Amino acid sequence: MVKSIQEVMPHIAFGGDYNPEQWSEEVWLQDAKLMREAGVNLVSVAIFSWSVIEREEGKFDFTWLDKVLEILHKHGISVALATASASPPAWLSKKYPEVLAVKENGVCYQVGSRQHYSPNSKRFLEAVSTLVTEIATRYKNHPAVKLWHINNEYGCHLAECYSQESLDTFRSWLKTKYQTIERLNQKWGTAFWSQRYNEWDEIQFPANLPTFYNPSQMLDYKRFMNDSILKLYLLEKDILREITPDIPVFTNFMYEFKPLNYFEWAKELDLVTWDSYPDPREGIPYSHAMHHDLMRSLKGGSPFYLMEQVTSHVNWRDINLTKKPGEMRLWSYSTIARGGDGVMYFQWRQGRAGAEKFHGAMVPHSNDPNSRAYKEVKQLGNELKKLDKIVGAKTNAKAAIIFDWENWWAVELEGKPHNKLSYLDQVYQYYEVFYKQNIAVDFVRPDSSLEKYDMVVAPMLYMLNESASSHLKNYTAGGGTLIVSFFSGIADEQDHIHLGGYPAPLRKLLGLTVEEFAPMAENETNEIVANGQRMKVDLWADIITLEGAKAIAHFTQNWYKGRPAVTSHRYGKGCALYIGTNPSANYLMELFSGLFHQLDITAPLQTPQKVEVAERVNDNGHFLFILNHNEDPVTITLDQEKVYENCLNNKEVRKEIILEGRDVAILSY
Amino acid sequence: MVKSIQEVMPHIAFGGDYNPEQWSEEVWLQDAKLMREAGVNLVSVAIFSWSVIEREEGKFDFTWLDKVLEILHKHGISVALATASASPPAWLSKKYPEVLAVKENGVCYQVGSRQHYSPNSKRFLEAVSTLVTEIATRYKNHPAVKLWHINNEYGCHLAECYSQESLDTFRSWLKTKYQTIERLNQKWGTAFWSQRYNEWDEIQFPANLPTFYNPSQMLDYKRFMNDSILKLYLLEKDILREITPDIPVFTNFMYEFKPLNYFEWAKELDLVTWDSYPDPREGIPYSHAMHHDLMRSLKGGSPFYLMEQVTSHVNWRDINLTKKPGEMRLWSYSTIARGGDGVMYFQWRQGRAGAEKFHGAMVPHSNDPNSRAYKEVKQLGNELKKLDKIVGAKTNAKAAIIFDWENWWAVELEGKPHNKLSYLDQVYQYYEVFYKQNIAVDFVRPDSSLEKYDMVVAPMLYMLNESASSHLKNYTAGGGTLIVSFFSGIADEQDHIHLGGYPAPLRKLLGLTVEEFAPMAENETNEIVANGQRMKVDLWADIITLEGAKAIAHFTQNWYKGRPAVTSHRYGKGCALYIGTNPSANYLMELFSGLFHQLDITAPLQTPQKVEVAERVNDNGHFLFILNHNEDPVTITLDQEKVYENCLNNKEVRKEIILEGRDVAILSY
Amino acid sequence: MVKSIQEVMPHIAFGGDYNPEQWSEEVWLQDAKLMREAGVNLVSVAIFSWSVIEREEGKFDFTWLDKVLEILHKHGISVALATASASPPAWLSKKYPEVLAVKENGVCYQVGSRQHYSPNSKRFLEAVSTLVTEIATRYKNHPAVKLWHINNEYGCHLAECYSQESLDTFRSWLKTKYQTIERLNQKWGTAFWSQRYNEWDEIQFPANLPTFYNPSQMLDYKRFMNDSILKLYLLEKDILREITPDIPVFTNFMYEFKPLNYFEWAKELDLVTWDSYPDPREGIPYSHAMHHDLMRSLKGGSPFYLMEQVTSHVNWRDINLTKKPGEMRLWSYSTIARGGDGVMYFQWRQGRAGAEKFHGAMVPHSNDPNSRAYKEVKQLGNELKKLDKIVGAKTNAKAAIIFDWENWWAVELEGKPHNKLSYLDQVYQYYEVFYKQNIAVDFVRPDSSLEKYDMVVAPMLYMLNESASSHLKNYTAGGGTLIVSFFSGIADEQDHIHLGGYPAPLRKLLGLTVEEFAPMAENETNEIVANGQRMKVDLWADIITLEGAKAIAHFTQNWYKGRPAVTSHRYGKGCALYIGTNPSANYLMELFSGLFHQLDITAPLQTPQKVEVAERVNDNGHFLFILNHNEDPVTITLDQEKVYENCLNNKEVRKEIILEGRDVAILSY
Repeated sequence: MVKSIQEVMPHIAFGGDYNPEQWSEEVWLQDAKLMREAGVNLVSVAIFSWSVIEREEGKFDFTWLDKVLEILHKHGISVALATASASPPAWLSKKYPEVLAVKENGVCYQVGSRQHYSPNSKRFLEAVSTLVTEIATRYKNHPAVKLWHINNEYGCHLAECYSQESLDTFRSWLKTKYQTIERLNQKWGTAFWSQRYNEWDEIQFPANLPTFYNPSQMLDYKRFMNDSILKLYLLEKDILREITPDIPVFTNFMYEFKPLNYFEWAKELDLVTWDSYPDPREGIPYSHAMHHDLMRSLKGGSPFYLMEQVTSHVNWRDINLTKKPGEMRLWSYSTIARGGDGVMYFQWRQGRAGAEKFHGAMVPHSNDPNSRAYKEVKQLGNELKKLDKIVGAKTNAKAAIIFDWENWWAVELEGKPHNKLSYLDQVYQYYEVFYKQNIAVDFVRPDSSLEKYDMVVAPMLYMLNESASSHLKNYTAGGGTLIVSFFSGIADEQDHIHLGGYPAPLRKLLGLTVEEFAPMAENETNEIVANGQRMKVDLWADIITLEGAKAIAHFTQNWYKGRPAVTSHRYGKGCALYIGTNPSANYLMELFSGLFHQLDITAPLQTPQKVEVAERVNDNGHFLFILNHNEDPVTITLDQEKVYENCLNNKEVRKEIILEGRDVAILSY
Repeated sequence: MVKSIQEVMPHIAFGGDYNPEQWSEEVWLQDAKLMREAGVNLVSVAIFSWSVIEREEGKFDFTWLDKVLEILHKHGISVALATASASPPAWLSKKYPEVLAVKENGVCYQVGSRQHYSPNSKRFLEAVSTLVTEIATRYKNHPAVKLWHINNEYGCHLAECYSQESLDTFRSWLKTKYQTIERLNQKWGTAFWSQRYNEWDEIQFPANLPTFYNPSQMLDYKRFMNDSILKLYLLEKDILREITPDIPVFTNFMYEFKPLNYFEWAKELDLVTWDSYPDPREGIPYSHAMHHDLMRSLKGGSPFYLMEQVTSHVNWRDINLTKKPGEMRLWSYSTIARGGDGVMYFQWRQGRAGAEKFHGAMVPHSNDPNSRAYKEVKQLGNELKKLDKIVGAKTNAKAAIIFDWENWWAVELEGKPHNKLSYLDQVYQYYEVFYKQNIAVDFVRPDSSLEKYDMVVAPMLYMLNESASSHLKNYTAGGGTLIVSFFSGIADEQDHIHLGGYPAPLRKLLGLTVEEFAPMAENETNEIVANGQRMKVDLWADIITLEGAKAIAHFTQNWYKGRPAVTSHRYGKGCALYIGTNPSANYLMELFSGLFHQLDITAPLQTPQKVEVAERVNDNGHFLFILNHNEDPVTITLDQEKVYENCLNNKEVRKEIILEGRDVAILSY
Repeated sequence: MVKSIQEVMPHIAFGGDYNPEQWSEEVWLQDAKLMREAGVNLVSVAIFSWSVIEREEGKFDFTWLDKVLEILHKHGISVALATASASPPAWLSKKYPEVLAVKENGVCYQVGSRQHYSPNSKRFLEAVSTLVTEIATRYKNHPAVKLWHINNEYGCHLAECYSQESLDTFRSWLKTKYQTIERLNQKWGTAFWSQRYNEWDEIQFPANLPTFYNPSQMLDYKRFMNDSILKLYLLEKDILREITPDIPVFTNFMYEFKPLNYFEWAKELDLVTWDSYPDPREGIPYSHAMHHDLMRSLKGGSPFYLMEQVTSHVNWRDINLTKKPGEMRLWSYSTIARGGDGVMYFQWRQGRAGAEKFHGAMVPHSNDPNSRAYKEVKQLGNELKKLDKIVGAKTNAKAAIIFDWENWWAVELEGKPHNKLSYLDQVYQYYEVFYKQNIAVDFVRPDSSLEKYDMVVAPMLYMLNESASSHLKNYTAGGGTLIVSFFSGIADEQDHIHLGGYPAPLRKLLGLTVEEFAPMAENETNEIVANGQRMKVDLWADIITLEGAKAIAHFTQNWYKGRPAVTSHRYGKGCALYIGTNPSANYLMELFSGLFHQLDITAPLQTPQKVEVAERVNDNGHFLFILNHNEDPVTITLDQEKVYENCLNNKEVRKEIILEGRDVAILSY
C-alpha cells in the first residue's frame, strides 16, 4: 500500500533537480554541505542519466549513483529518484531506429537533444521497462529514496508522432473505440467531403492534407496521443508499484500545457507536481496562481509540489529577464498559499556545458555562497523549516471554474466562426475576478461533483455532451448559480453540432436561444449597457432571443443593438446567467461582485491592491497567507477579534499587520 | 448539339449545393418542401459523393441518388448533377497510392480532407473516367438533370504536384512544346548560371533549388500545371458530351485565382460560374464586382452564374464576420446587375459535422423557418421569380481592361526591380475608377478583338509578345485610346527582355523610352504635378525620355524631379497614354473623367456616392439596376423623359426614385 | 613562385564579370570596344560556364572561350579566368546524384538554379578536379590570364549539407579532432541530457532535434562546414598552383557572411576580393565601409579588390532602389580610400534571360552608350587610370577592433540570457565611432599581434579561451588600452562556461566581477549617469562588483540602480575599460573622444558631417581621400602648411578645398 506524501515528506519539500553526473566527486560533497546549509530536504536525481546508467544495452553501472545517494542520505537529504527515461541514449536509436519519433513530413527526430522517442514504439517501451526495473530493483530499499520521479515533463517537445508504428497503433485505438468502421464513419461524419472509410487501414493521420482536416478525426488523434503518452507513464508506474508498493510516484506537469489531459493523468499520480516559470516582465504572475489552483484541483484539493522554478532567469525565452530581489521568495509563498507543500528548483547547480547552461540555479556558476541566488535560496529554505504544521492543509473554495482539456482541444480546432479565440484567455479572464478579490476558487470538470460550490463558472464550454449538460441543469435546479459564457454547449464529444438552436442542450437552462453568432473583427468593439452604465465588449456577439431569461445587459451598437448581451434565468432553486459576448474586466468585476454578495462568498480579508490573500486549513489550525506584491509597504486590517501568530517569526499579531514591499506573512489562528 | 443555358434554365437560377448524403431520408422530403417555399429552382447534387456512389472499386450504389433526384423532380426543382470527382474515396489511394499528389518536399498528400489527387496520375484519370461514365449513363435521361457540374473549384487547394509521374509528364509536355532540347535551352536562357540541358530527363521541377529559379522554367511549370488540370476537366467533359450531347456543362471558378487561366478554360465551358465570398469587413465588395465583370467577359459577355455565396458567414477566415441584414440580398442583385443569371449558395442545409459545419447555409442548424438566413433566402428567391425576362440580357461596355493570366504569373515571379508589386492591385486600381463612376467595363486579353471599345486600359502588362504589341498599335492607330501603365511591354512570352530600350515593342506607340526604373521603398512617396495640382505617387518611378509624346504630369521630387511621369502620344487616329508611376486614386479619377468626357463614355445615371448602377439589355428591353449600398435612403434622379417599371414591384416610376438603405430597384424601359 | 598582385595588375583594376556565353559572337566584339572606351582593364570570365565547357562528362569545348580570350587580349583587357566550378551541369547530378547537397529534411537540392552541390561529395570533388585541371592546362600560358577566379561566393546559398556523405565526413572530422570518443563526450558536455556517445557513428547532425541542440556540437558543425568548403577551395587552388605557380588566385567574399571564417580563408588567397551591394535606402553605406576595413585587415593590410558592385540596382531585394547619380562613383572611391586596389561590377552586360536579368550592369538592356549606367562607368574608368601610383598603398591604423568568426557563431547560438543580441550590431556600434570621426581602424583576431595598436576594442567577445585572455592581459600590461563590452570572456572554445565568476579569465584584468546578467526586455531601457550626464542604455545590464576597477558610469534605475555600468582599471602600464551595458551612440562617442584625445589618435583632417576621410601611404607618397556624402557642397580646411595635388585633376591644392555634393578629391602630398 502506497504511503501518503505527508508520511514520506512531513515537511514543506525544498530542493531541486540534482545532476551530479555533470560534476566530479569532489563537487558532490560540497553540494551536500551547501544543501544542508540551505535547508534542502529533497532532491530529484538521475532524470537525465539513462546513458550513464545503462552504458550499453543491458550493461548497467550504478556505482556513481550509489555514491551520490549515500552522500545525500548521510547529509539527511531525501531523494525523489528519477526513472531516467526522459532522454534515451544514442546507442538505443542507433540499434533500434524504430524508437525515434517521426515528424509530419516523415523525417525522424534524432539524438542530440532529448525526448526524441516515439511513445508508440514497442521497442522503446521494452527498453524503458528494462531500465526502470533495474533502477527500482537496485534502490527499492534505499533509505534516502522517498519518491519516484517518473520521466520528465512528458510531451514537452514532442506530443505528436507520425511513425508507421504510431499509425498502426492509432488504427487499433480507433478500432477499440468504435468497434465497427460504420460507427467510425458516423462519428467522424465522413459523409462530408467523401471521406468514408471501408477498412481500418485506409485511415491516415490528420496530416499532410490539402486543406481543412476532419475535426472529429483531429480530436481523436489528440485523445490518442494523450493516451499513448499516458500509457508510457503507466508502464513505468506499474513496474514501480510492483517492486516498491509503498513509494509514491509522480511526474512533473507544465504550464498552459494543452496536449495532455492532466485531469486524467492526475488519477494515476500519487502527487501532482508542476514546473512554474513566470516571465518576470508580466508583473504579478496571476496565470501561475491560476495554475497553482488548477494543480491543487487536479486531485480534488490535495497539496501539490512546485517541482521546478528558477532562482533568477531561464534561458529559453527570446529575452530572459531576471527576478528582482524578493520575487522568488514571494512567488514561492504564493505556491504554498494556494495549496503547495513543496518548492523545488531546476536546478541545484548551474551547468557548465550544454543547452541549459544559462538557466539559473540554486548555486550559480560563480559557486559563490554570497551570490544573490544562493543567499535567497538559503533564506527561504530555512524559513520553510518553520512550516511543517501547514503540510497537508486544504483550501476551502465555495466557487469553481469548469476547465476541460477536451473542450480546449475542440474549441481551438480550425474552421470556427472566430478562429482567434483562446480558451485559456477566456478562462483567465474569469479567474482574474476571483484572484483580484482573493476569493478561493477550484477548477472542476464538466461532470465533477458540484455540490460543495455555491457558484460555478463555465467559460466558453463549446464541447459539452448531453450528460454533462444534464449535470449542470441538476446543479442549478438544486440551487446553484451557474455562469455560462458565449460559444458554450455547441458541440457534442465528437465535435458534431447539437442541432435545434444554439446552445441546444442548455437552452432550457439558460432560457434563451442564440440565433446567430456575430464575431467581431480585430480592433472591432461594441458596447453593452447594464444598470445605465456603458462598457466596451469585443470578439463576439451572440444574437439572443429570450425564452424565459431576462436581459441584464444589452448591446448598444451595430445591427443587433438593443438585443440582449447578458441574461439571467431562474431555474429550479438556482439561477443561470449567460454572457453572450466578451465583456471588459470592469463589467465582470461588477457582475461577480454582485453575485459574491448575493451568495455570501467572501475573501478571508479585505486588502489594498496587489495584496494576495489565501487560506489553508488543517487540524493544526487556519493559515492565512498575506502576500504584498507591491514594492512599498502596506497595512492590512485583520479580524479585530482574532489573535494570530505569524508562523515566519512566531510573533503574535492583532488588529492589523504592516508588510514591507514584497514581504509575506503567514498568520495562524 | 448542346442546348443553350437559357433553354434549360429560362429563369434566374436560384438554389445551392445540396448534400443529402449527410442527412436521413426524412430530411430529404423536408428539404424539398422548404426549397419550394424559398423559390429554389436549381440545386447542385453529389459534388462530394464519390465514396457513397462507388463504395468499392467498380461497385456502384445509386439507390440513394435515385431517390433524391426523384424527390427533387417531383417538387419541380432542377438539378445540376455533379460528376462527384472532387474528392476521391479512401479505397482508391490505398489501392493506388500513385493517385496522390506530392508536395515539393516529396511527401504525399493524404486522404482526410479533399482534393488530394494528382491531375497527372494516369490511374486517377482512369478512375475518374469510370465514375463519370457510370453517372452520366445512369442519369442521361433523367428529367431533373439540366446541367452537369464537373468536379468542384479545380485547383483550390492543390495546383502544384511534384510526383515522379508529374515530372515525367512535365518533360513530355516540354518536349511537345519545344521539340528539341536545343530550342528549350535557348527559350529558357540556360546559358545563364550553367543551366544547360543535354537530355529531357535532366530537367527537374523548379523546386528544391538553393536560390532563384529560372523564370522561363517557372512560367512553363505554371502553364504545365494549368494544362494538366484543364486536361482532367476535359476528360470529364468529353465523356459527358459523348453520352449527353445536349446537356450543358460547367465547373465553378474562384475569386482571385491565379493558377488557372480562366480565359482558356472558359472556351471549354458552356456556362461560366463562380464562387463569391466577400469579407463583410471590406464594406462594398467592389473586388467582387470586378470579378462579376471578369466572369461575364470570359465568354465574351454571356451571362454567368454565381454558383456559391453564403447567407451569413463563412468559417475559413481567421475571423468570420456575418453579413448585415440586407447585404446578402443587395450583393445578389449586384451579381445580376453585372451579368449574372444565377444566384446560388453553398450550401442548402448547414452541416452537422465536418470541417465546414460553421459555414452559413440557406437552412441553418436551428432548422428554423423564422431564422434570418432562411427568411432572407425566401424573400430573395420569391423576388427573383419576377425576373425571367432579364435572362440572357447583355452588358454594353465601351471600355475594356486588359487582364492576362500569363502576365499575372510572369510579373509576380521573383527577381524583379520591385518584388512587392501585385498585379491584381494594379488592375483593381484602374477598375475602381470605372466602378465608382458606374461606367461599364469589360475584361479582355491582350490579343482580343478591341474594335467595339473606345478605350482600353493595360495595367502593368509586363509580358507582351510582339504580335500582341502590334495588335495594340493597330487598335490605337485605328482611333482607339490606349492607357498603358508602368512596367509594361518589358518581356516576351518566355520572360526574356525585349532588348533595345524599355518598353521596346511599345516605344513607337507611346512615343518615349523608359531609361531606368526607380522603385520606391515602403513608405517612400514622390509627387507629381499635373495641371498645377500636386498629388502623391508611390511604388515606382520610370525615368522617361520623350520621343514624340508630351508629358501631362511631372515628378516634383528626388533626383528625377522635373522628368515626365505621365505622357500622352497621338498615334495614327488614336492616342496612347503612359502612366510611369503608381498614382493616387484621385489623380486616376481626374485623368479618366477627362477621357470619359472626351470619348463620350457615360454612366447610365448620375447617382449619389455608394450607389451602384448597371444596365443590361435584351429583346425584352433595358434593365437598369440601381443598388443603394448606403445604410440611409437616397434619391436618384432618372431620365426625365422616360417611363420606367420597377420589375421588383411592377410599379411605374418617373423622374426620380427613392431607395431605402441597402435597397435595390430594377427599372425596365 | 606566385607573382604579386601589383606585378600582374599595376593599375587600379576596373571591370566586371563577363558572361559572353549568353551572347553571340558579334556582341563580343562590340563588348571589347565598349570596354576599352570605358577604361576596363580586367574582366572575370567563365564563372558560370561549366556546362558549356564540359558539355558531357569528359568532353571539353574551349573554342568559344579561346575566341573570347583572344578578343579581350587584342583589346588589351586582362582576364581573371574563372575555374567555372560555381554551378555544376545537369548531366553531372543526373549521372551522380550523390553530388547534390541535401536539406535538413533529407530532400536533395536540384539543378535549375546554381550551387546545388555538396562540398563533401567525393564524386563532386573529382569532377571539379578534372574541370580545373583542363582549364588550367589549356590557358596556363595565355597572355591575357593574369589571375585565377576560383568558384564564386562560396557558400552563398548553401553552407550546410545533411547528406549521408556529409555525415560520414563530419564523423571523421570529429575523430581527427578529438581522437577518442571519451574526449568528445567531455568536450561536448554530453553528461547533460543523457547525450553520451559510445561510438562515432552514433553521432548525428545537430538537426531534426525535438528541442535545443548541444551548443558544442553545433559549433563543431559550423567549423566542419567551414572546413568542408575551404577544403573544396583548396582542392582547386592546389591544382592551379601546380600548373601555374606564378598566377595569383582568389575567390570573392561577401557582406556580413557568417558561415565562413574569412580570417582562415584569407591565408589561402593571394588577393582578398569581395562583393558589395549596399542598399541605397540606408544612406551612407558605413557597414560597407566597415567591410572594406575588414577585408583590408584579413591579410594584414594588403589591398583588396571590390569584385562586384552594381551600377544602378540589384534584383534580389524585395524592393530594389537605384543608386542616385554620383553615388556609384562616390562609393567606389570609398573602396579605394579604405584600401581597395580594384573596383569591379557584376556584370558587364545586363542579361536578357534568367534570374538576374533585372540586376543592373555596366551596359544596360538598352545597349545605349548614353545610358546613365554606361556613362557613369566610363567616367569612373577613365578617372581611375590616373591612380596607378596609389596601387599597393597601405593604411596606418593606431586602433583595432577584435572581430572573431568563431565568437560570432558561438554568441548567436540559442539558449543565451538574451537571444536577440546581434554580434554584428555590437561591432557596428563601435565601428561607427571610428567611422564618424574618420579614425583609421583595423580588424584583428583575439590572438593577433597587437603591438602596433594604442587601443583595442573587444565588443561582446563571449567566447575567449585562456590563451587569448592572457594575450589581452599582456597587451594591456604592456601599455595598451583595451575596451571590453558586456558578455565577454564567458565561454571557452567549446562553449563551456569559464567557472569562477564572470568573466573569469578577464576578472583580474578588468578589476571586477559580473555577479549576474540582467537582460532588458524589448522597449525596456535604463539610464546611466557619467560626469553628471544621464544617457539611455538598453538590451543588457551587468550587475558588477568592483574589485580594483573604478566606476565611470552608474545605472540610475531598477533594483540595481547606483551599481557600476562602465568601469576603468589600470593594469600594468595600460588600462582596461569595461562597458557592462549597451550604451547610446552619444555616450560611446564621448567616451571614445576622450580616449582618442588621451592616446593622441587623430583623424587626418577635421571635416563637416558626412565627409569621409581616409589616407593611404606608399613609396609614392600620402594619398588623402576626401569624400563628400552630402548632396550639397562643403568646404574642408586642410593642413595649412602642406601643398597637395588632387590626383583626379592634377591641380595643386592649398589651405582648403571645396567639394561639390557627392564629389571626391584625392590629395597627394
